[in-house]
Amino acid sequence: MELSLVETPTPVVELDIVEANLRRMQDYCDRAGIALRPHIKTHKIPALAHRQIELGARGITCQKLGEAEVMADAGIDDILISYPLVGVGKALRLAGLAQRATMRVSLDNRVALETVAEAGRIAGREIGVLVEFDSGNGRTGVTSIDEVLELARAAREMAGVRFDGLMNYPVNARTGEILRDLLPKMESEGLKPGIISGGGTPNAFRTHEMAPITELRVGTYIYNDRMTVAAGHASWDDCAYAVHVTVISRPRPDLAIIDAGSKVFSSDAMPPGTGDGHGYFPAYAGAKLVKMSEEHGMVDVSACGGEAPKVGERLRVIPNHVCPVSNLFDRLIFTKGGAFQTFMPIAARGRSQ
Amino acid sequence: MELSLVETPTPVVELDIVEANLRRMQDYCDRAGIALRPHIKTHKIPALAHRQIELGARGITCQKLGEAEVMADAGIDDILISYPLVGVGKALRLAGLAQRATMRVSLDNRVALETVAEAGRIAGREIGVLVEFDSGNGRTGVTSIDEVLELARAAREMAGVRFDGLMNYPVNARTGEILRDLLPKMESEGLKPGIISGGGTPNAFRTHEMAPITELRVGTYIYNDRMTVAAGHASWDDCAYAVHVTVISRPRPDLAIIDAGSKVFSSDAMPPGTGDGHGYFPAYAGAKLVKMSEEHGMVDVSACGGEAPKVGERLRVIPNHVCPVSNLFDRLIFTKGGAFQTFMPIAARGRSQ
Repeated sequence: MELSLVETPTPVVELDIVEANLRRMQDYCDRAGIALRPHIKTHKIPALAHRQIELGARGITCQKLGEAEVMADAGIDDILISYPLVGVGKALRLAGLAQRATMRVSLDNRVALETVAEAGRIAGREIGVLVEFDSGNGRTGVTSIDEVLELARAAREMAGVRFDGLMNYPVNARTGEILRDLLPKMESEGLKPGIISGGGTPNAFRTHEMAPITELRVGTYIYNDRMTVAAGHASWDDCAYAVHVTVISRPRPDLAIIDAGSKVFSSDAMPPGTGDGHGYFPAYAGAKLVKMSEEHGMVDVSACGGEAPKVGERLRVIPNHVCPVSNLFDRLIFTKGGAFQTFMPIAARGRSQ
Repeated sequence: MELSLVETPTPVVELDIVEANLRRMQDYCDRAGIALRPHIKTHKIPALAHRQIELGARGITCQKLGEAEVMADAGIDDILISYPLVGVGKALRLAGLAQRATMRVSLDNRVALETVAEAGRIAGREIGVLVEFDSGNGRTGVTSIDEVLELARAAREMAGVRFDGLMNYPVNARTGEILRDLLPKMESEGLKPGIISGGGTPNAFRTHEMAPITELRVGTYIYNDRMTVAAGHASWDDCAYAVHVTVISRPRPDLAIIDAGSKVFSSDAMPPGTGDGHGYFPAYAGAKLVKMSEEHGMVDVSACGGEAPKVGERLRVIPNHVCPVSNLFDRLIFTKGGAFQTFMPIAARGRSQ
């Protein structure tokens, strides 16, 4: 099948680059003595999760129960949910999962702990708990060592759960400081964490320098994007995911309109100081996706001179942040060496519950 | 069914407010002598499109062929695609639609005109063409009166298409100026536009003051959102669409984390000067959704004092911009007078091709 016959906008994933990206991270983890537990939030595709495990990953990470359900349905049997679950509805679904897969859940509060414990009691199996601590991100995660100890003790004592260790995102210098202070205290109480889980693609290859992480959660590394390139984690050639679009209008000499806007690329901006605009055009490095409405992308082509793309021309765009883009399409295209392989459903797309 | 049993995050649409919003716009159009052709990009739900037509709308507007296909499958038979279609794949699909519905397409260039003409010839039916002109938005739309005339003449002469009129977005003072200059020239060539289509919810109720529009394309008015409230188009009580979320963590006294981030709310920011943050909490007017990651929403609750929401509490959030949020969920909940009615698939979600 000729790729140029596939209608745009469509995401296209090059499997040779995926394979190289997966091997590179697995090799790093093997050398550093860290278990790899990839985050599937980036790809949401069971076939890619299976490939990650075949190459050596210990299991997978999901953010939401709905993602974990899709992955368990596809036969993945070792899943960390790196997200607090709260309420009886979540407990019932977690119990269902725990009966067919090894489940762990991270959390930072007592209500979430009770939710997991209820699930474990319903399932008749203990569910592993990781206590999340914050290293400055200002998101979930307890903010003091006393709170870590309190939740770990509660997990040790509560029926239905098992204290399995700690979780942090993103791993940074502060993570190391906290652990140096925390770990001796935990050991003195017999609460040595079996797992210390850390995450974040941009600094992934420096994890071992920053903190004694035993399991690494990374997602974006499978595809890479404009942000991971800007962070120095990858080059353009390491970007496996591009959206193919078509120029639908050239209303002015300096402006090209493409058939993809915020409903394709999301509105995620680059971090301050790392570039403006909403994507990178490998064939037109001077073109800038300066503005979007929902279905229109406004491309400043003034730096392209006479070589600017024409109406009807197809372009490849590497998005700022690939994860939300992955969540906007029901399927994508796999290529290998540039040749069409198959359409692939993004099975866990939109599983935000 | 108890609404509180439905898992979060989930969008909930209150039909009583929808009905009032639809009637208000239809009444305005009836009084102003303008035909209403609602844009379904906001709701993407055939049942709501049918209700718009029952209340008096002439037909619907879609941005993408995939949306039009869903609506035609549901029996809608008068559709404007307000978007240039380019290429043989689009021509084939448009031809398929033209065989079962009255189709019109807007465009601003010759390649798109040839695509529509090809579709009309394949279908064996003329397809109506609206020439889009720009009134300062810098998106699609020709930027000179000469180009309008040129495309209109080409449409008149080309087999497979019929010149039906003009299109503009958004309608503003410049729209009126352009039309005052353009219309006499068109009439002198026998090119009087049968349809002058204008769009945009924020200024919808002033359309008749700004330009001689004959058909109005509006989308957001069905639900409203933080942007239309900020623009003075609606009040909070006119907002029919809210996302129900749960507080999953309270890591600090000033911070609540909800189970919804940019994969629920999108990252669309408010226009400059109209407010920061990513949503409005009707029950906690002082709460601010200051930051999001993909699945976490960081809510500054410092202004809520002792009344701040607790872990496990469910909250309603009115998003900044409802259209991209609508595009992120596969289904939502209809309520009437606050009581659960049904789950409703968002059938045209993700139809970006």
